[in-house]
Amino acid sequence: MPHITLPTDAPGIRGLLDAKPASGLRLSELAEQLLRGDSPLTPGERELIAAYVSSLNRTRYCAGAHGATAAHRLDGDFALVEAVQTDLATAPVTDLQRALLRLAGKVAESGLAVTPADIATARAAGADDETIHDTVLIAAAFCMYNRYVDGLAAITPDDPATYRAIGAHLATNGYL
Amino acid sequence: MPHITLPTDAPGIRGLLDAKPASGLRLSELAEQLLRGDSPLTPGERELIAAYVSSLNRTRYCAGAHGATAAHRLDGDFALVEAVQTDLATAPVTDLQRALLRLAGKVAESGLAVTPADIATARAAGADDETIHDTVLIAAAFCMYNRYVDGLAAITPDDPATYRAIGAHLATNGYL
Repeated sequence: MPHITLPTDAPGIRGLLDAKPASGLRLSELAEQLLRGDSPLTPGERELIAAYVSSLNRTRYCAGAHGATAAHRLDGDFALVEAVQTDLATAPVTDLQRALLRLAGKVAESGLAVTPADIATARAAGADDETIHDTVLIAAAFCMYNRYVDGLAAITPDDPATYRAIGAHLATNGYL
Repeated sequence: MPHITLPTDAPGIRGLLDAKPASGLRLSELAEQLLRGDSPLTPGERELIAAYVSSLNRTRYCAGAHGATAAHRLDGDFALVEAVQTDLATAPVTDLQRALLRLAGKVAESGLAVTPADIATARAAGADDETIHDTVLIAAAFCMYNRYVDGLAAITPDDPATYRAIGAHLATNGYL
């Protein structure tokens, strides 16, 4: 049960955004920019970072919703998303994607955990400045969204079909 | 030295916001809403939450900048801010402020660390739903800003006078 009374029974962050539209709008606009605005990373790659960080933070709602959105943006490859969320070391991603996901995992731990070696590994795999910037910022942002959702005990559905529907909706319509 | 090339030598998050204005604008608008928009918490109380969380996350730039901004908004009480950042248990804040800062500290650890008892303590000290919502969201947001700043190794001044100047500017002009 959520820690505060929510105006709707919308699941996850949706119910929280409805609770205070003035901040809800700003959070939605930020998500739209980070996950769907201009970036050297594809929307699918960015959703995969969001899904991975949410999984590390054990935020079931965000891990499920962004995992499904990532799969929808990655040709329906739910197995790939599950592999990343289960064991990044063996997941069938490119060297660049693995380096960026590892960098995102460091950011989830602490910004101070990121080392010059993490950055050098990402650059050696092909990352430029903007790719590194966007990876760090998306990972950081999901440390916010995850804490907002869990810190207020947002409604968290159990049915995987619910997350597939949310993912299909977000992949098509975005966050605004 | 920052992990990416920045277009200006502006310190802290300012240099990062300049690196990608499209996301920089969204981050600035969110900060303006959270710290200066409508809320049952005063701007000084909200800056204090930001300063406290930044201190817990050991993000020197944000702890210094928002600590100084909080002091400017709290009648120039730099000693109060330092007390909160040094030892919350003994800092001369109200029961409500202490309960909310403790809640913010839980959020910084993990959203899942927040318990019904933390919420009940805040309510017993006078917090309503919106106060709890805003506290959790501000704490969560600074877990993002802190990771963005440290994850990209933003420029971090050493001189306390620099932070006092930043705090005076932010207290007067805000984030836009």
